[in-house]
Amino acid sequence: MVEHSGLDIMFLNKYSPGSSSTSSSEAENKFFSKLKMSLIKKYPQKNAETLSAQYGTNLLLIGVSLMLALAQRGPAVKEEHLLTFITVLMLVQLVWMLCYMIRRERERSPVPERDAHAGTRWIRGGLTMLALLSLIMDAFRIGHFVGYHSCVSAVLGVYPIIHALHTISQVHFLWFHIKDVIKKYETFERFGVIHAVFTNLLLWCNGVMSEAEHFLNNQRRRLTALGYTNYTPEPEHNCNCSTSMCSMFTSSLYYLYPFNIEYHIFVSAMLFVMWKNIGRTLDHHNNRKRPSTRTSILLLGPILGLLALASSITVLVVYLIHVEKSSQTREAAVSMFYCYGVVMMACMCGASGTGLLIYRLEDWPMDTGKNPSRQLDSELLMGSSLGSWLMSWCSVLAVGASQSSPSYRWTCLAYSLLLILEKCVQNLFIVESLYRRCREHVGSEDCPGMVPEIFSVTGSMVPPYDGIVNRAYETQDKCCASLEGEQPKKRQVCSRNNSLPVGKSLNVTPGRNRQILKNITIFLFMCNISLWLLPAFGCRPQYDNLPEQEMFGFSVWSTVLNVAIPLNLFYRMHSVASLFEVFRKV
Amino acid sequence: MVEHSGLDIMFLNKYSPGSSSTSSSEAENKFFSKLKMSLIKKYPQKNAETLSAQYGTNLLLIGVSLMLALAQRGPAVKEEHLLTFITVLMLVQLVWMLCYMIRRERERSPVPERDAHAGTRWIRGGLTMLALLSLIMDAFRIGHFVGYHSCVSAVLGVYPIIHALHTISQVHFLWFHIKDVIKKYETFERFGVIHAVFTNLLLWCNGVMSEAEHFLNNQRRRLTALGYTNYTPEPEHNCNCSTSMCSMFTSSLYYLYPFNIEYHIFVSAMLFVMWKNIGRTLDHHNNRKRPSTRTSILLLGPILGLLALASSITVLVVYLIHVEKSSQTREAAVSMFYCYGVVMMACMCGASGTGLLIYRLEDWPMDTGKNPSRQLDSELLMGSSLGSWLMSWCSVLAVGASQSSPSYRWTCLAYSLLLILEKCVQNLFIVESLYRRCREHVGSEDCPGMVPEIFSVTGSMVPPYDGIVNRAYETQDKCCASLEGEQPKKRQVCSRNNSLPVGKSLNVTPGRNRQILKNITIFLFMCNISLWLLPAFGCRPQYDNLPEQEMFGFSVWSTVLNVAIPLNLFYRMHSVASLFEVFRKV
Repeated sequence: MVEHSGLDIMFLNKYSPGSSSTSSSEAENKFFSKLKMSLIKKYPQKNAETLSAQYGTNLLLIGVSLMLALAQRGPAVKEEHLLTFITVLMLVQLVWMLCYMIRRERERSPVPERDAHAGTRWIRGGLTMLALLSLIMDAFRIGHFVGYHSCVSAVLGVYPIIHALHTISQVHFLWFHIKDVIKKYETFERFGVIHAVFTNLLLWCNGVMSEAEHFLNNQRRRLTALGYTNYTPEPEHNCNCSTSMCSMFTSSLYYLYPFNIEYHIFVSAMLFVMWKNIGRTLDHHNNRKRPSTRTSILLLGPILGLLALASSITVLVVYLIHVEKSSQTREAAVSMFYCYGVVMMACMCGASGTGLLIYRLEDWPMDTGKNPSRQLDSELLMGSSLGSWLMSWCSVLAVGASQSSPSYRWTCLAYSLLLILEKCVQNLFIVESLYRRCREHVGSEDCPGMVPEIFSVTGSMVPPYDGIVNRAYETQDKCCASLEGEQPKKRQVCSRNNSLPVGKSLNVTPGRNRQILKNITIFLFMCNISLWLLPAFGCRPQYDNLPEQEMFGFSVWSTVLNVAIPLNLFYRMHSVASLFEVFRKV
Repeated sequence: MVEHSGLDIMFLNKYSPGSSSTSSSEAENKFFSKLKMSLIKKYPQKNAETLSAQYGTNLLLIGVSLMLALAQRGPAVKEEHLLTFITVLMLVQLVWMLCYMIRRERERSPVPERDAHAGTRWIRGGLTMLALLSLIMDAFRIGHFVGYHSCVSAVLGVYPIIHALHTISQVHFLWFHIKDVIKKYETFERFGVIHAVFTNLLLWCNGVMSEAEHFLNNQRRRLTALGYTNYTPEPEHNCNCSTSMCSMFTSSLYYLYPFNIEYHIFVSAMLFVMWKNIGRTLDHHNNRKRPSTRTSILLLGPILGLLALASSITVLVVYLIHVEKSSQTREAAVSMFYCYGVVMMACMCGASGTGLLIYRLEDWPMDTGKNPSRQLDSELLMGSSLGSWLMSWCSVLAVGASQSSPSYRWTCLAYSLLLILEKCVQNLFIVESLYRRCREHVGSEDCPGMVPEIFSVTGSMVPPYDGIVNRAYETQDKCCASLEGEQPKKRQVCSRNNSLPVGKSLNVTPGRNRQILKNITIFLFMCNISLWLLPAFGCRPQYDNLPEQEMFGFSVWSTVLNVAIPLNLFYRMHSVASLFEVFRKV
């Protein structure tokens, strides 16, 4: 038994006792046809996942190594090479999307399963806006190419055209197919989706790199103007522009970069959820989109949020104007930025903390159902916080130990510490909000499915309660159906609808809690938009911080910033999206 | 219903209809006591996880920022500061382990649940070996401190003592508690375990940094000796050693570093699994350790493996001797290394590929049960491959585009491409092996639990079959018990023990397959040990590669290597551990 214990299901089917005398060539044929079949059709899911993830990772790494070579400005690798590589990847993705859509069109038979949590309508709407701004950027790039076409490579003209095409088809794909749970022809789909994920990630990296380079050049130019260093910018091209608009195109491009960058990273996250969903069996209890809740009175949150937004824009404008002038006004501008930051962080910590406190008071069960979209959300929040945490700890260390003492030394310390705290508390608040069960739906028809923690033993065993029920009592009855024999304390969960004087004498009622939570969420939403705006449009005083440069050296410190700031930008945009989700849910 | 729909379980218990006239101060008291309770006792799991993960991450980041400052060799941060920080973390972990063990000792009541897959006995044994080598290292460090005690900080003496104490108690903890699934006092435990995870990770980072620095200094010294650069090493201390053994201690230390580094990263991975297990409900069907299989004939695998190991040691010795001599012998040594690498990679690709082919032929179902230990294993394999993939792609790019042409140019290209392929194929092989269902146990008593994909509908519903059964027929009967009413094809799974002439006419029988797989596994096991040995003991020719230095610049290329090589070392050790697991399972 031990030696020959492999499972021989297939052999058993093919080789009945009578057919044991088949010739060896026939057996060989069967062997190969079986191998072929098991390679094409029966490839196990875990392996296909690993293989496709490895494929995607290596695509990205090829791109990253090209970028590293490009950053060195050697003669071997030029921008054209990188753009050619990315263009090829985009073309492959275009072909794949086309094939996928044609195939889906042809099938037409049963409606494919759809994951209700992936890519909600408002997030797709937001992405469409970002995509439109990306298209404008492509138009500017084409204009720029036309101006310099006599002395630049043709790739610089082809790239924006393909990118525009790619953007349009990708948005179409997102609107109609992002929720698909693919269960047929999985291998082809899996590779296509992962290819799309990593193509977008590479486009994100490319955008981040271009922006960081632009920013560093700007800063060097400014420092040269102030007399600190000596920097002569290399001419971008060897010929003059043939149209009058070139400089307008170039300068406008950098205002559009932040949107393009966010577009790609968001698409990449959405496609990743689609990839995780391939071959997944949906749990139909969990896979229901909850309708958004009624709007309640919103006053304080939006007002404070708008105040935060207005003050951020003011700070941004003042900073950008003053930082270019003398070193004294520069220091004043940086001081102002840190003071503003301290106030913002303190308010946000307070708001998130209050939200958490309310959750602690409510004692509401958590939702532990499987939901790749939500899991990715919370992991991304944590992951993208890493960058600013490292940056902040470096600042804390440098400010604490440095000999030089700029006027904003202690504000910078307070800002760094509060930034760490704020991200911790906000992450906790968002994660808890996302994992909370929906408020509106206890007592509605999905009660047994919705509260598996309380009904853990019976929840999965009891079949859906669909017998003849008096509709008038349905809400109450269904909820209690699976509770027979549970402890009396738990039974009371359902008597909530009876006319007991619940929470009458308490100073916080659930209705008021909900209102406070909504206000907090909208306030945090606006604050995160504000904090995205500042670095996205060039307010990055950390590059100039002397204590950090002394302690870590210029190259290490700017590497830390070049990693931390794009991650922070993504963090802010991602929490804006998550907070919108929370707002709809509370 | 909409406005006041919060769950008021606790209010209901406290405020019965009669007590609605309680005074407001009493209500306030209750409010606070409730808040306190919900903060301490009822803290939701997801939040506690997020909070503790954030705590641990920030600990690590503080350490990393200290290291970055240390690397700059500024006056503000010295080695003592970093060592003090790490010592404090180790002391906290020591106190926590003590508290944990005392608490466990006191409870004594029911045996705590244990995760059978976490920290198998042989892995703990291996760790104990590594810990012993770490202890020797601590002894050398103490000796070194005694020699220089007049001019170095006392921290350099305290650190190895605490580290030795930490190592001993940690090994004790691993032997007796690593499998615990904690369900009581979770918050305290969660923070303690994550603290331990990140303390070990920080110790790993510290080891990696010291080793990289040592290696870079060595290389600079060598290049100076060859006349390439001009480097005068700084004196390590300001006074002379008071004993005669100091130089012996210092030079021996660097042979022990690799083991110490592996020890910490492995402990960290094991503790991470323990952290993931906190509050988890074990699936008792899956949570059974499978007994290891009978050994079959092993000849080719071990012989080829030993050959690989012997040739690696030869290459290492020849390389280390020749690299220090003239630049001609150095080039010959590097060429030899790459030729050896190409042969090794090709053989390993072949072996892993054959293994995958056998799996494709067998069509065995996969095991999809939850198992954090296995999931971490496969994620770590993928994650730690990233480093070498990036390194290899950079090499491919540099060799492909470079003008300078050393004699080993094309061997280096072939080596890099094969390295990428080898890691891909080996990952696939290991992941598939880990996720395969055990071979020996279909037909044994855990049949219904072990094959949930085939018996997916009944598997989870049918209660454990523990009635009165004739023991003689148990093996066969039990397996088929849950199959009543299934399709005839599936029934045949169990008739395997009957005397059908199964697979008689096929050229590959399951028994032979198993033998081939075992041989492949043992071969890969030895190969991975070989490939760990080389970089661990100083064979890192990549640092000298001219094309890469030209293309990426010295600082970027050595940063890539400083990240990729430690990750690769971890990858090799980790695949050794995984392959051992596979060997026991096949």
